Order: sequence, then C-alpha cells, then structure tokens
Amino acid sequence: MTASDLLAQIAGTGRDSARGGYSRHAFDAAELDLRTWFTEQAQRRDLDVETDRNGNIWAWWGTPGPDAVVTGSHLDSVPGGGAFDGPLGVVSALDAVDTLRAKGFTPARPIALMVFAEEEGGRFGVPCLGSRLLTGAIDADRARGLRDPDGMTLAEAAKRAGHDPERFGADPAALARIGCFVELHVEQGRGLVDVDAPVAVGSTVIAHGRYRFSFAGQGNHAGATLLADRRDPMLPAAEVVAAARAAARRTADARATVGRLVPTPGGTNVIASTVDLWLDARVPGDGRTHALVEEITAAAREAAFREGCEVTVTEESYSDTVTFDAGLRDRMDGVLGGVPALPTGAGHDAGILAGHVPSGMLYVRNPTGISHAPEEFAEASDVDTGAGELARVLENLAG
Amino acid sequence: MTASDLLAQIAGTGRDSARGGYSRHAFDAAELDLRTWFTEQAQRRDLDVETDRNGNIWAWWGTPGPDAVVTGSHLDSVPGGGAFDGPLGVVSALDAVDTLRAKGFTPARPIALMVFAEEEGGRFGVPCLGSRLLTGAIDADRARGLRDPDGMTLAEAAKRAGHDPERFGADPAALARIGCFVELHVEQGRGLVDVDAPVAVGSTVIAHGRYRFSFAGQGNHAGATLLADRRDPMLPAAEVVAAARAAARRTADARATVGRLVPTPGGTNVIASTVDLWLDARVPGDGRTHALVEEITAAAREAAFREGCEVTVTEESYSDTVTFDAGLRDRMDGVLGGVPALPTGAGHDAGILAGHVPSGMLYVRNPTGISHAPEEFAEASDVDTGAGELARVLENLAG
Repeated sequence: MTASDLLAQIAGTGRDSARGGYSRHAFDAAELDLRTWFTEQAQRRDLDVETDRNGNIWAWWGTPGPDAVVTGSHLDSVPGGGAFDGPLGVVSALDAVDTLRAKGFTPARPIALMVFAEEEGGRFGVPCLGSRLLTGAIDADRARGLRDPDGMTLAEAAKRAGHDPERFGADPAALARIGCFVELHVEQGRGLVDVDAPVAVGSTVIAHGRYRFSFAGQGNHAGATLLADRRDPMLPAAEVVAAARAAARRTADARATVGRLVPTPGGTNVIASTVDLWLDARVPGDGRTHALVEEITAAAREAAFREGCEVTVTEESYSDTVTFDAGLRDRMDGVLGGVPALPTGAGHDAGILAGHVPSGMLYVRNPTGISHAPEEFAEASDVDTGAGELARVLENLAG
Repeated sequence: MTASDLLAQIAGTGRDSARGGYSRHAFDAAELDLRTWFTEQAQRRDLDVETDRNGNIWAWWGTPGPDAVVTGSHLDSVPGGGAFDGPLGVVSALDAVDTLRAKGFTPARPIALMVFAEEEGGRFGVPCLGSRLLTGAIDADRARGLRDPDGMTLAEAAKRAGHDPERFGADPAALARIGCFVELHVEQGRGLVDVDAPVAVGSTVIAHGRYRFSFAGQGNHAGATLLADRRDPMLPAAEVVAAARAAARRTADARATVGRLVPTPGGTNVIASTVDLWLDARVPGDGRTHALVEEITAAAREAAFREGCEVTVTEESYSDTVTFDAGLRDRMDGVLGGVPALPTGAGHDAGILAGHVPSGMLYVRNPTGISHAPEEFAEASDVDTGAGELARVLENLAG
C-alpha cells in the first residue's frame, strides 16, 4: 500500500460534478467521511486516535507527550479543488509510518499524525481554523460565530458533527506535546518543475489577509430605473476587482484576488441591493499586505461614494510572513541531501504552528503548477518519493 | 373581500428570509401554492378553470370563445421581489369579477382571467415565457431545454408540477379566443407619484434584451499564482459591469444592468475558472438595444483578450419596443376619464400579446418608485381604486 494507493482510496469522495474537482468542506458529509477513513487507517496501524477540543485529529505512535515529532495536513478542500492539496500530506504520513515499521524502526520520541480542521476556510471563511484555534490565534467566540454561505454557524456545524463547540479555544496542553511539526504538501506553483526536482524544503510563507467588502445600494427594477436614480452596488464591486489588480501590479510580488462575489438578490432583471466580495491579498514582508489593502479600500470607498452606496470592509483573517525554523530546515536538508528551498505564496497550518513550535514543510512537484483547481497534479512516482522522504525525515527527527 | 384583502391572503407565501421580500419562481413550491390558491378563488366565483398547453391558467366567466375580454398577470416574482409585481393584476381581476357580479352585470362577451407562467424569467432566464410560448415567440424545444440555476430543465420542472412539456409551443387556438387583453400592474417608477394620480394607462414598453456573458480563464491558487501567470475571468467580467454603465450613459434613455454574476468555483482563495454574468439591456426604439449590446460586447472581448480569457455572449431573449393598441387605449382612457399615459421600462406579458391581439395596461401608483425589491409598494386605497378602474374597463369592453 503506497501513498498513491491511499490517495486512490479516497478519489471518489467529495467529487463536485458542477465545479469539477473536489468540494470537501469542514464538517460536511465528504469531509466527515474522510475523517472516518483516516481514523480507520490509523487504527489499522495501531495508532491511538483522539480528536482535540478544536476538531483536529491526532493519531499517536507512542505515548502522547512532550517533544513529539508531528506530521500531517488537512482533508478539506476549496470549492472545486484538486485531489492533492491536503490529502497528500495525510496519506504520506500514513505511508511513512508503514515504511518505518517495515524497516523495524522504533521511535525514541513519540510520533503523531495530524489532520487539521478547516484549513482552506472554504466553508467558514477563516483559513487554518483548526491550527488557529489550537494556538489561540483566533478568539473562540469569534470562531463559533463564523457562518457558512447558508448561514449556519461553525458552532452549529461542529455540534452536528459530534463536537462540543463550547470547548473550542487555545489548547496549550495539546500544543505543548509538539516538539516539532513537518507538513508535506503538493507544490502550488512551478518551482520544482523549473529546477526538475521532485521534493523541496519550505523556506517562507507569504503574509496573507482575507477581507470582506460589503456594498449596500438600492435594489430596484433593471428596466424601469433610470441611470440617474440608481444606487447599484455592482458598480463599486466591479471597481474593487479592477483596483485590486492595479494595486497589486504596482506592488512588487503582490497578489490580490477576488474569486468570490455574491450579488443579492442576484436576478437578471434586478439591480442588486447588496454585493459582497472577498479580497484575498498577499504581499511578502510585514505590513505590506495592509498597505495594499488600504489602497484597494480607498478605491472601494471612492467608487461606493460615487454610486451613492455604503461600503464596509472587514478583515476576516491575517497572517504575517512566516520564516520556517532554520534548525529544522537545515536538519531536513541534511537528511534529504541538499534539496531546493522554496518560498510559498500559499498559507498552511505549518505556518500557524511556526509561531509556537519549530515547524517546516516539504513540497512535492506539481507538473501543472496549478492548485485550488481540478488540474492540480502530482505524478504517482513523485507522490511515493515524497512519502519516502517524509519517512526519512521522521526517522531522523524521532530516532 | 377587496383586492387588498386578497393580497393579504397570499402575503405569507414565498417569503425570502435571506434576501427579503418574496421568491416565487415558476413551478417552485411557493408558485404552485399560489396557483392552487388562484384556482380555488376562481372556482369559488364559479369561473371555469383550465390550464393551457404552456402552463398558463385561464378562468372563464362565460363560454370560452373568440372575442373574449381577457385580463390577468402573473404570480411568480424575481428573487427577493416585492408583493405587488404580478399578484396585483391577479387579485384586481378577481376583485373586478366580484364588483361586476355585485352590480348585476352580465357580460355580452366572455371574460377570462389569466395567470401567466414564468413572467420574470427568475428561474429559467427567459421573461414572459408563458406568453412567448403561447404566441410562438420562443421555440418550444429551446424552452424545454432552459435550465434553472441548479441545472434542472424547464421540461423536468414542468413535468414534476404535473404539466406535459411535450405539448409546449404555439397555441393559436387558445390565442384566438382573446379579443383584447388588459393587464393591471403596479407602476415600476415614480410617474404617478410625480403627477399625483392613482392610475395610468400604458403607452409603450421599452425594447428589452437579456444576454449571458460567459468568461473562461484558468482556476488557480490565489496566493501561489503570480499576476503574470493569471488568466482570471473576474477581470473582464468586472470590465463588463463598468462598460455597461459607460455605454448606457452615452446612449439616450438607455438602461444596462448586471444584477447576476456567478464566479465558479467561487472560493475566496481561488482564482475563478469561469465567470458568468447576465446583462439586462433596454433602449427605447428599434435596433438601439442591439447597438448598445454590441458596444458592451466589444469591451468584453477586448478585456477577455487582455487577460487571456475566452468569452461567449448569448442572447437569451429580446423583445422590440411595443406600442399598445391605440383604439383600446383610447377606449380605456374614455372610461377612466382622462388618466395619465405612461411609457414603461419594464417588460410584461401584455407586451408579448400586443403583437397578436389588441392589448393594453393599467398602472397603479407606487409611492417608493422601487420595484423588483422588498420596498415595492402600493397603498391599499390605490390598490382598491385600481381594481375598481379595472372593473369599469372590463364592464365597458365586455358590455
């Protein structure tokens, strides 16, 4: 049973026939199926499975305790996402246990495999929610009140999935068990394609903020309402899309994206009464993301004013630039024999944990360079190489 | 039982708690409830109720036959629409029957009350679908294949509601029974507020087209994808919103609206792979709407090309300018004693029928001037005045 075989086991779960790819969101049917699948896989390997106060799963090889070597990733996806973002790190962790067992390795430090809850923020809007709650990076009350697109709160969704949302929040006891954390992930760009290597070590994670822009105008008839009488929130919303691109172009290495935009009521012959859009903004270096967002916000306010609309801008999440632990990175690099080091524009639970415990990442080559889309890919041979490298890293760290 | 009382009976049906107002769409639970309610109301009045091949309801006072005086409107709404657009004409027709019966009137010509199917196009995209099918203005095969936002075809939805979609199509026998058609409707602007009158006669309906713009780019990761590598369909979609407004500003009396825009997959941290948007365009005078849409389409193509995206533009419906029958209009004006004549920017089934039988409209004052939104309104006294005026018109036409 290779890592590729494990991926194949879950290839039918959570397919999205409308969008293509996969839609597996925190506590929905597909993600709960995958949690059950992971738990069974872990139990087959005689790992002790527990779910922490924040809905993250831990599977222990050895006695839970301080100084554990922890690895894992997540099983949720963006809407219409690929097969690798998240699951690759989970199946590689399971496979690494098999590899180490097969060679008779006995860990001197406990090893734990983790599955984090709601890494993508695909349902409740805040990415890395499981690791943010674990580390106290998000207030538990705020998290409980987050709503999915249908209006259900995280508290309600978690309760329905059998969790107790009252226990959500910083969990220093659980966190203190982690000696170091390594996350393996499919690469979300073409860095490894360009240097023709299957695996890299992570160097940095770009700063990342998510912002909700809510425009309110006056819903009205699309035919009977003269232009002069309109307060159409679609106009300033469209200006934000253009302003985000323009501001990002003026800012070195910046990325700004509007991928989600919802007019209400959303009828063809109806001027919208409100438009909500979400800006995903990322600029390397501290403070530069905020400066970019301020520029876009100014454009939004001006456009809203011109159209007689109101606008409110809410920061839904923000993470500063992360530089992964140099000691851990050097050690991994030594084990793997000098692999490329890659920065990433994508966020990860390893980036959240990095503020608390030595953390690092391994990336596996993605020939398309595309991620968060059905075209995301990794060759089976690279998947199995990645899992093998993760096993070597865990052997070194826990040996 | 006044027209206001009848409206109050259906005030609880199809409320949309998310958008506000009402969402009553062709063949959904709310609209089917309202059809049942109308049928019961008609039967209580000893009217003979039938549903024609295209899902339009007819309730006959007298023997169905040529030269009938027909009145009615629709019971479906836009998403999150008001309480009056459609139902006002239906309850006024029922009330007018009561008024004429109470005064002992015996029609010399048969009178029919009609409820048209899918007037708003709120579910299947083509407005006035029931009257277009009846008159042959839309091909039956095309209509059967129209899909709602969940992908269900009109044929399937109609079948589930007990209709036989194979019988859809031009129905000259049914149409030939109409001697003249009068639709009473809430005004969708402030024309009557400005002249301080409760009721007007309709003069013209503006030309109206609906166009779907589908942009295809490359879905990808919002953080890991450099600006230079992006093919983000949200950029040209936003340009269409701006171009539509700019082109409409340059064109006298034009209206152009984007009220519906759907990015796929629609994740915050995902560059969209496709964006669909719907343009509602209306310009008085023949051919001018097409010229406006061509201008906007050119902007869409240029913006799509710049971003490396594809765009396809599809005309979903188009109706030329309608001038209501002068003889019928003069006759109504004579009965009502010189009321204002109003052009409208909104489309109506009366506008579709106008190409086949003498047709006209009555408008009832709307103090907010707002329509297709929860703020749409008519005072109870104006509602009852309107129903009374409709009764006088029917008495004159059928007497």
